[in-house]
Amino acid sequence: MPVESRAAIMFSPREPLRVETVTVADPGPRDVLIRLDAASLCHSDLGYIDAKFPHPVPAILGHEGIGTVVRKGADVRVVDEGDVVIPYLLPDCGECPYCLSGRTNFCVQLGRSYAPGFPTWFSYQGTPVHGMLSLGTFSEYLVVPQDQVQKVNPAAPRGQASCIGCGVTTGVGAALITAKVEAGSSVVVFGLGGVGLSVVQGARIAGATTIVAVDLNADKESAARAMGATHFIHAAETDPVAAVHRLTGIGADYAFECVGSAKAFEQGLACLSAGGWAKMVSVGLIPDEVPIPGNWTNFVGKIWQQSLMGGARRKDVAGFVDWFMDGKLDLSAMVSHEITLDDINHGFDLMRQGKSNRAVIRYSDW
Amino acid sequence: MPVESRAAIMFSPREPLRVETVTVADPGPRDVLIRLDAASLCHSDLGYIDAKFPHPVPAILGHEGIGTVVRKGADVRVVDEGDVVIPYLLPDCGECPYCLSGRTNFCVQLGRSYAPGFPTWFSYQGTPVHGMLSLGTFSEYLVVPQDQVQKVNPAAPRGQASCIGCGVTTGVGAALITAKVEAGSSVVVFGLGGVGLSVVQGARIAGATTIVAVDLNADKESAARAMGATHFIHAAETDPVAAVHRLTGIGADYAFECVGSAKAFEQGLACLSAGGWAKMVSVGLIPDEVPIPGNWTNFVGKIWQQSLMGGARRKDVAGFVDWFMDGKLDLSAMVSHEITLDDINHGFDLMRQGKSNRAVIRYSDW
Repeated sequence: MPVESRAAIMFSPREPLRVETVTVADPGPRDVLIRLDAASLCHSDLGYIDAKFPHPVPAILGHEGIGTVVRKGADVRVVDEGDVVIPYLLPDCGECPYCLSGRTNFCVQLGRSYAPGFPTWFSYQGTPVHGMLSLGTFSEYLVVPQDQVQKVNPAAPRGQASCIGCGVTTGVGAALITAKVEAGSSVVVFGLGGVGLSVVQGARIAGATTIVAVDLNADKESAARAMGATHFIHAAETDPVAAVHRLTGIGADYAFECVGSAKAFEQGLACLSAGGWAKMVSVGLIPDEVPIPGNWTNFVGKIWQQSLMGGARRKDVAGFVDWFMDGKLDLSAMVSHEITLDDINHGFDLMRQGKSNRAVIRYSDW
Repeated sequence: MPVESRAAIMFSPREPLRVETVTVADPGPRDVLIRLDAASLCHSDLGYIDAKFPHPVPAILGHEGIGTVVRKGADVRVVDEGDVVIPYLLPDCGECPYCLSGRTNFCVQLGRSYAPGFPTWFSYQGTPVHGMLSLGTFSEYLVVPQDQVQKVNPAAPRGQASCIGCGVTTGVGAALITAKVEAGSSVVVFGLGGVGLSVVQGARIAGATTIVAVDLNADKESAARAMGATHFIHAAETDPVAAVHRLTGIGADYAFECVGSAKAFEQGLACLSAGGWAKMVSVGLIPDEVPIPGNWTNFVGKIWQQSLMGGARRKDVAGFVDWFMDGKLDLSAMVSHEITLDDINHGFDLMRQGKSNRAVIRYSDW
């Protein structure tokens, strides 16, 4: 039996989302119907709304959330009805050369929901509606393939745990899995949204001794310090490159670009030591129309790598929830705003203004 | 007592070098006077001659060679008169933050011979002549600071050993030290001059099981296979990107750009697997005026690093000579031409035409 669900639909980029009632079709044999308790707003959702990146419409965006399995397909083995789960952006088909390599969270099935003819479970007044990357957490109910569902500790507080599936995983993973930040090292983080704050936290967990947090908004300082930053640079007033070289002497060991800004990327690269070990880690997405800044010399003695979802796999999400429950991960500063689904456009306005860390949609009482 | 020496001088880029008699001043307290047995011609010398990169003139280029210590300054501790030595491009002052880090072959003293007022030991008709990076092996005699001199096995055959100081060290080091190629991995090498052939050899020593050698000149195949290449692609006729994906299925684990070509760089990047582990290693120098090819998406899931002299330190050169003497390094295909100093411009012509691996100048009987 299909279910009706309230959902925020993007009918066209550059327009406010519209909250409507959509129909969610039955899960197939390998799919899971989830009722969400909470979902949170991520910069990549905003990138689609503001047409920084293309997305087919109509679409239900949203890829962070936490909820309960309501119904599952006949062949689903990884979860049961009643399980608390986090939907995850990346599939892991288990069959492609990447999955079989055992070395990566990349799977060739990533993006399958955009392939021609791939079924979406959402429809609005009879018209199919895309779910972002087989998800779409701006709908209270959604159907997700089982290889994008991770069972987690059911006691996890819903608001903060809703950020773990993307923002926290991406940021903490970028520090610990992609970059493998070492104890005693120096780290610079550009952009202190949910992802950047999580990179700060990952660097703290790794034992970095100098963690420089950089943002254009001076209000970010307290959250950054709460997450573990040892220094804060208000980039609107202070040149971060000169400041980092003053602080580190030889330049930083790691720089993370977490906002999708080519200027921040260029500054991050310039902050690094040039001895061959220092890593520039791209976490934010930058449109391909924006040229890669700098020249060959700027990269001499430096390593550049891009982080895809922090290098994390689906099962890592359960581990991060456990870290949160054990107090190893501090998410107290992550959720800056709680909103209703009807307020979702206001939530994105806060993000555009750089005022929010994570705004969380409350779907249920928790 | 200053010595007279025959040397090839670059009076102006884009003109043939001129062989003249120069004066080599006495070594200072921490310097060493060397008489070379052999020197070899490297692509970076050619880059200066052809004005691809700027170099002050008049200058004595050349940074590969092997010879004997003739005289040493009072404070020199690392070598004695009569020692067989290889001059090395990179200083290691032992005092800068990079040297003290113990993690790199980069030293802030690199380039000190271009600093204002730094003494050069060479002069021609009373005019000071620059020695390339405190070296200048296109002079039979030269004075070198002791932190750029490495004592090596005196039994080393001079012709082949003369390539070790830059070409072999850069290539073998790029594979083993910079990229840390792993056993069982797949490697693509673009450009099969002395450096590229040495990367092939380094990959073989590392235990790579697929080593694809790529060149625009079909004549390079036999040398590449002798060094350990399992496949050869004649890039003038076959698209290396498609060929590498056919061979590897998932894309290569490592690609090395060894000619200073932005097109080869772009192709190398496209040959790589996208799971997050594969490395693009820049070994060739590309002028900063040439834009970095590709867009952000081309780098997704890939790691880019530049290799400075293969990540090798001065002492590693002695180790590579030992490997050569033990038969671990095969340099039989390295020296393709032996020339006299008077023939040096012909040697660079061969290089321009892609016909030589290494052309070696014979200064003495060996």
